[in-house]
Amino acid sequence: MTAMAEFKYIGTRPVRPDGLEKVTGRANFGADHALPGMLYGKVVRSPHAHAHVRSIDTSVAEAMPGVLAVVTAADFPDRSSLNWRRKGFNDNLMASDKVLYHGHAVAAVAATSSAEAQAAAEAVAVDYEVLDAVTDALEAMREDAPVLHDDLFTEGLARTPTKPSNLVKKQVIAKGDAQAAFAAADVVVERTFVTPMVHQGYIEPHACVANFNADGQATVWCSSQGHFDVRAMTAMALGMDLGDIRVIPAEIGGGFGGKTTIYLEPLAVKLSEKSGRPVKMVMDRDEVFRATGPASGTVNTVKVGCAADGRIVAMRAKLVYESGAYPGSPLGAGAMCIFAPYDVDDILIEGFEVVVNRPRVAAYRAPGAPQSMFASESVLDELAEKVGMDPIDFRLKNAAKQGTRAPYGPTFGPIGLRDCLQAAKAHPNYAKPLGENEGRGVAVGFWFNGGNQSSAEVHIAASGVVNVVEGSPDIGGSRASMALMAAETLGVPYERIRVRVADTDSTGYCATTGGSRVTFATGLAVIRACEDVIGELKRRAAAIWDIDAEQVRWRDGEARPAPGVNVQAEALSLADLARGAARTGGPVSGRASLTAQGPGPAFSVNMADVRVDRDTGRAAVTRFTAIQDAGRAIHPDYVEGQMQGGAAQGIGWALNEEYIYDNDGVLENPGFLDYRVPVASDLPMIDTQIIEVPNANHPYGVRGCGETPIVAPLAAVGNAVSRAIGVRMTRLPLSPPKVLQAIGNGRQRADAPL
Amino acid sequence: MTAMAEFKYIGTRPVRPDGLEKVTGRANFGADHALPGMLYGKVVRSPHAHAHVRSIDTSVAEAMPGVLAVVTAADFPDRSSLNWRRKGFNDNLMASDKVLYHGHAVAAVAATSSAEAQAAAEAVAVDYEVLDAVTDALEAMREDAPVLHDDLFTEGLARTPTKPSNLVKKQVIAKGDAQAAFAAADVVVERTFVTPMVHQGYIEPHACVANFNADGQATVWCSSQGHFDVRAMTAMALGMDLGDIRVIPAEIGGGFGGKTTIYLEPLAVKLSEKSGRPVKMVMDRDEVFRATGPASGTVNTVKVGCAADGRIVAMRAKLVYESGAYPGSPLGAGAMCIFAPYDVDDILIEGFEVVVNRPRVAAYRAPGAPQSMFASESVLDELAEKVGMDPIDFRLKNAAKQGTRAPYGPTFGPIGLRDCLQAAKAHPNYAKPLGENEGRGVAVGFWFNGGNQSSAEVHIAASGVVNVVEGSPDIGGSRASMALMAAETLGVPYERIRVRVADTDSTGYCATTGGSRVTFATGLAVIRACEDVIGELKRRAAAIWDIDAEQVRWRDGEARPAPGVNVQAEALSLADLARGAARTGGPVSGRASLTAQGPGPAFSVNMADVRVDRDTGRAAVTRFTAIQDAGRAIHPDYVEGQMQGGAAQGIGWALNEEYIYDNDGVLENPGFLDYRVPVASDLPMIDTQIIEVPNANHPYGVRGCGETPIVAPLAAVGNAVSRAIGVRMTRLPLSPPKVLQAIGNGRQRADAPL
Repeated sequence: MTAMAEFKYIGTRPVRPDGLEKVTGRANFGADHALPGMLYGKVVRSPHAHAHVRSIDTSVAEAMPGVLAVVTAADFPDRSSLNWRRKGFNDNLMASDKVLYHGHAVAAVAATSSAEAQAAAEAVAVDYEVLDAVTDALEAMREDAPVLHDDLFTEGLARTPTKPSNLVKKQVIAKGDAQAAFAAADVVVERTFVTPMVHQGYIEPHACVANFNADGQATVWCSSQGHFDVRAMTAMALGMDLGDIRVIPAEIGGGFGGKTTIYLEPLAVKLSEKSGRPVKMVMDRDEVFRATGPASGTVNTVKVGCAADGRIVAMRAKLVYESGAYPGSPLGAGAMCIFAPYDVDDILIEGFEVVVNRPRVAAYRAPGAPQSMFASESVLDELAEKVGMDPIDFRLKNAAKQGTRAPYGPTFGPIGLRDCLQAAKAHPNYAKPLGENEGRGVAVGFWFNGGNQSSAEVHIAASGVVNVVEGSPDIGGSRASMALMAAETLGVPYERIRVRVADTDSTGYCATTGGSRVTFATGLAVIRACEDVIGELKRRAAAIWDIDAEQVRWRDGEARPAPGVNVQAEALSLADLARGAARTGGPVSGRASLTAQGPGPAFSVNMADVRVDRDTGRAAVTRFTAIQDAGRAIHPDYVEGQMQGGAAQGIGWALNEEYIYDNDGVLENPGFLDYRVPVASDLPMIDTQIIEVPNANHPYGVRGCGETPIVAPLAAVGNAVSRAIGVRMTRLPLSPPKVLQAIGNGRQRADAPL
Repeated sequence: MTAMAEFKYIGTRPVRPDGLEKVTGRANFGADHALPGMLYGKVVRSPHAHAHVRSIDTSVAEAMPGVLAVVTAADFPDRSSLNWRRKGFNDNLMASDKVLYHGHAVAAVAATSSAEAQAAAEAVAVDYEVLDAVTDALEAMREDAPVLHDDLFTEGLARTPTKPSNLVKKQVIAKGDAQAAFAAADVVVERTFVTPMVHQGYIEPHACVANFNADGQATVWCSSQGHFDVRAMTAMALGMDLGDIRVIPAEIGGGFGGKTTIYLEPLAVKLSEKSGRPVKMVMDRDEVFRATGPASGTVNTVKVGCAADGRIVAMRAKLVYESGAYPGSPLGAGAMCIFAPYDVDDILIEGFEVVVNRPRVAAYRAPGAPQSMFASESVLDELAEKVGMDPIDFRLKNAAKQGTRAPYGPTFGPIGLRDCLQAAKAHPNYAKPLGENEGRGVAVGFWFNGGNQSSAEVHIAASGVVNVVEGSPDIGGSRASMALMAAETLGVPYERIRVRVADTDSTGYCATTGGSRVTFATGLAVIRACEDVIGELKRRAAAIWDIDAEQVRWRDGEARPAPGVNVQAEALSLADLARGAARTGGPVSGRASLTAQGPGPAFSVNMADVRVDRDTGRAAVTRFTAIQDAGRAIHPDYVEGQMQGGAAQGIGWALNEEYIYDNDGVLENPGFLDYRVPVASDLPMIDTQIIEVPNANHPYGVRGCGETPIVAPLAAVGNAVSRAIGVRMTRLPLSPPKVLQAIGNGRQRADAPL
C-alpha cells in the first residue's frame, strides 16, 4: 500500500457514522416507515410464464372488507402510443395485454390490514389465455420460438427485420482484424460458457410507503440506490412531473444494483391516489425472486489465439445475454469489459440480447462483466496451461498499461493491472502448497467505473460542526468516506463532520448509487463544496483582518495570513469563524454540482484455492485472495469490505446459485432455502490487498471499488476447480452434480463452437 | 396600493402550496409524528406558585407498570456554576431547588402509554416548603415582597445593589430633555395604564418526539418557529453539541412568538436517553396556560405635552413589565416602540422589568409594543380631544417621516406612516356616522422589524421544476412568498416552484421565524440563491453558444445573447438548460447565506368602531379598519391575513383576555372556556388597506408585516370605548364589569401618577 503520510484523515479507519444505529436495529429501512391511517398494498401476480390477459374482474375484491382500492393497468396512463421500450418499462410494473413471466404483476390492492389485502389479492379474477413459454436464450432465438413482443424488431442487424423476434439487438465492438489475426496464432482455445440467471440476494425486500395528497403531489418513502432516479421512474410511469413527487430515502439493506430500478412505487402512489390514504407495500421473499431483477443468464463463446511465447494475437467473443421479459440486459458492459485488461491489437466482440419468459433483469454489481469475463479468463487459463506458462506471467505478458487503447475506445491513463498481477505473484498465498484434489485458479477482473452527476452542500453550524448534505444513498459506507474527504479538505476532525443523505426536495441532484461512482463523483462534489466553504471562510477572515481574501491561507482547519502578508493576526479556526459568522456576513455554507469526468478504471486479480470432494462433487473454496487497485482507499475497511463482499457473491455465483424453472416457466426455487447463497460457513476468510495507483482525475485519487470485486471470482473459482479435477468446467454453477458428472465423464459436454 | 405592473408574480394571490394538506387534515403537526416503540412522556408540575423543593421521591413512579424512565433536575447537567440568567433558562425547563410558578416542571416520566405516564406522574412525590407568592409587578417591587431569586441583583441602577430583588433591571431611552420641555406645553395629559398578562392563544399545544440514539445523537421532531434555535436551546440545556442534535420541523399550528422558546424538547431527549426508546410529549391545554410563555403584564405611565396647535413638545413614559418567574420580558422593545411614530425632540422613557410568580413570558407578536403603545396612543387620543383636533390630524401634525431620528437611535429612511394616516383620513369607514353609545377610536402601531441570519439553496430538477430549500418554518404563508420571489427572480411560473422547509442537518442556518423577518431576510437569501442559479444558467448557455457568460442576458426565464452579441442562438429557457445540464457541467444549483441588513420599519393606523351596551357593559366592535405599510406585499392575501389576525388578537387583548390568579398564585382560568379569545361571532370583518412604501434594502421592497398588526388595536378599541362612554379607560381588558363600573362611576379609579 502506498504511504499515507500525505493525508491526515484519508486512509484511516474510523467508526462509521451509521453503524450503531444499524447494529442496534434502530435505523429505518424501507419497511420501517409508517403513517397514520396507512393501508397495506399487495400485488396480484401471474401464475403463468406467458399468457394473454383476456380480462380482469376486480369486483369481488373491491367489495371485500377493508379494501379501499384496486388498480390494474387500466388505472395507469395509456401506453398505446409509447415506443415498445418505454411501454415495456411500464408493462413490467403492471402488465396490460400480456403477462411475460411467472410473477408478473397484473393488479394491486390496498386494504386496512395486510391479511385483508392478501385475501383481496387472491380474489382478483384474471382470465388468462396461456401461451407457450420460452425461458432459454438459445431457444428463444430459434425461428419457431414463441414470440414475446409482436412489436419487437431486432436492432443492429445488417438487414432490416421484417418480422418480430425475441432478439433485441446485435452489437459489435471491433479493434483491428481479429478474423485475420488468428492465422498468426500458434495455439487457439475456443469454448462456450454458460452462466445461470442469479439474483443479487439483498436481504431487504423491496418496500415503500406512498402518500398522494390533495394537491396531486406524492411523497414516497423507500429504500433504493437512488431516490432521484426512483422519482424520475415513478414520474415516468405515472405521467407526473418530477416536481410533484418527493422521494425520501430509507437506509438500504443491500441492493448490489438490484435497487436501481423500481417495482412497487408507482403502484403504491396509484393506490394512495385512489384510496386517499397512505399505502405501504412490502414484497415477500418469493416475490423478490419471482419478479425483481436478476442478473442475465448468458451463453458466451470465446476464442483466443496466442503465439508460442504466450503473446496473444487475437481475441474473439460471441456473447448471448438474456434480458428477461423486457430489454435491459448489461450486454454492452459485458462486451466492454471482456477483453479490456489486455493489450491486444485484434479483437472482435459480437453481442446478442434476447428476451425470454423470465423477470426483466436488473443491474448486479459490474453488470455483465462477471459473465463475459468468466468466459475470457477461463480460456486464458487454458491457453496459459497449453503454452506452459504460469497464469499470472501469461497475463503480465499481455496486460494493458498506461497508453493501451481499450477495445471499447478510450486510452488508459495510469492503471493498476500490472501492479495487481505483480502483487499476486508475490503474495504468500500464491506460494502455498496444494494438496490432492486441490486446485488454484487465477483470474483478472475489470470495471470501467462511473462518473455522472452529483451535488453536495456543506453547512457550518455555529459550534463548528460541519453538515455535509448529499443525495447518494449510502450502500457501502459512503457517509464515512464523504466525512473523511470533507475532514481532509477542511482540515477538521472526522468526528466533527455529519453527513446527511437528503431527500429529492432538499438537496441537489445525485445520480443513482451504482457503477462505483459515489466515492468518486459525489466525493468530488463534497470536496468542491468544502472548497467553496474555504473560499467563504477566507473572505470572512480577510474582512476581520482587513486584507484581501487572496492574502489568506487555509491550512489544518485554520485561516492565517499568507506568508509575507504584513498583518498582526491570530489564526482563526473554522470553529472561530463559525461562531462569529452572524457578524461577518451570515451562516457559512458551500455547494457544488458537477458531472464527474474521468473515473479511473479498476482492475483486480483474484486467486482461489479449492478442494474437490470426489465422492460428493462438492467444491470448497479453501483460500481466496482479492487484490485490487482502488486508486486511493479513502476508508480502507470499506474497500476491503467491498472486495470481500464481491468475492463472496462471486463464489456463490460460481458454485451454487441459479434460478430453476420448470418446463412451463414456473420458478421452482424462490427462496433462500432452495436458492443457495453462500453463508459464513461456506467461505474462508477472504484475504485482501489494496493496491493504490491514484486516479489523476480525483483530488484524492479515488477510482471507485464496488463492482470490480465480483468480476474475477467466477473464473478464479472455475479455473481452480478445472485444475483440481483436470477437466475444463464451462457451465455454472459448479454444483456437486456438475462436478461429479465432469469427474465421471472425464470431460465436459461439448458446446457449440463459434 | 402602488401599481404592480413592474412585477409578474409578486403581488399576485396564488393558492398556497400547503393549503390543501392543511385543510384536509393531512399535514403533519407537532403531535402527529410517531416512531416504533415510542413512549409517552408526561411532566410533573408544581401545584404551588412559590416553594422550595425539599426532595423528590420517584421510586414509586419508577416501579409502576409501563414506566421506563423518570427524570428530575438531577438528570440534567449541573447548573450550580452557571450565571443566574443561564441557570434560569435551565431551571424554567425543570426546577431544581425552587418552583416559581403554578405549573412549573419538577419531574417527567415516560411510559408505554399515555395513561401509564399520567398515573406515574401523579405518583412522583415532591416535598415542598411553600413560600409566599407575589404575582403582581408593583407588589413584587416592594421592599417586603417575597424574593424569587436570591442571586438576582438589579442591573442598570445608579448604585450597585447590595441585596437581591425582584427588579431585574432599569433601562432608559432619552432624546433631548423631556423634563424641561414640558414647560413649553399648553396641554399635558398623564395617565397610568394596566395591561393584563395574556396568552398567544395558538391552537396547537406544544408537542415533540425525541429519539436519542446509541451514538449519543438525538433527533427531535417538533413544531416551532425556529428549529435551528430549538436545536441551540436543547443543546444548551443538555450540554450537547449542536452537531449531535437534529431537529426536524413539523407544521406549526400557531405560534405568534410563543414557539420561539422550548419547554418539552430537552425533557423528551433525556427521557429517550434514559429509556433507550423514542419519547413523545404533548401538552394539555391547561399546561399550555400554566407553564408556557404569556405576554408580559404591564403598568405603564405616560405623560405627553403639546402646544395649543397640537404640536407635541415632550413625551415621557415609565414602563413596568412583568417577566414572569425568570427574566426575558420584552421591555426593551416596548420602550423602543412607544414614541417611535412621532417626530418629537424631547423624549424620556424609563423601563423596569420585574420577576413575579407567574410563568416566564415569551414573545407575543411585536413583543412589548402593544402594551406600551396602548398607553401612549390612549394619551394622544385624549390630548387630541383636549386641543380639539381630529385624532388623525393630530398624529399627522406630529408624525415621523424620512429623516426623523427614532428615540432608540436610527434615522428613518422612507416610511409609510404619513401615507397610512392620510389613507385612514380618506377611508370611507372614517366618515361613516356613529349612533348612540358608539365610539370611534384611532391608533397608530409600529414595529421595527427584524433582519438576522438566513440561508437558502435552490436546486433545478431536470424537468425544470425549481426546489427552494430553506430553514424558516412557515407560520404565515411564507412558502408561498418564497415561491413568488423565486418565480419573479428566475422568471418561471409560480406553479413550477416547490419550497421545502428542511431540517437542521439538511439546509443552512436560518434564525427563528419571528420579528417579521422571514419574508425580508429569508426572502433575500432565496432571491440571492436564485441569482446564483441565474449566474450558473448564464454560464451554461454561454458554453453552449461559445460566448462569455457576461454576454448572456437572463430575462423572463430565458437566456438570450445580450443585444449586440453576434451569435446565432435560440433562447434557452430554464427548463431547456435543466434538461441538458448533465452535459454542460452537472445539476444546476445555487445557494446564499447572509445576515440581512436594513429591515424596513412598519407603521400602521387602525380605526375601531364600538357599540357599548350600557345595561351589560359589553363593548362590541362593529367596524375595524387596519391600514399598514407593508413595503411591498409579496402575496397580498397573507399580508391582509396578518393584518386581520393581528387585529383579532388585539381586540381580544383589549376586551376579554386575562390570566386570573388567586391570592396563592394559582391560575384559575387555564382553558379556552374561561380564558376568552375572540371567536368569529365576536368580530366584524376586518377591513384592510395595504400601503406600499418599498423598503430600499430589499430587492422587492419587503418590510415585514407580521407584528405591527397587533400593536394598534388595543388603543384603537380603548379609545373607541372611552369615546363611546365618555370615560377614559386605562385598565385592560375592557370587559363588561369594568365598563359597567366606569359608566356607573362616571369616571374610572385614579391610578398612580409618575
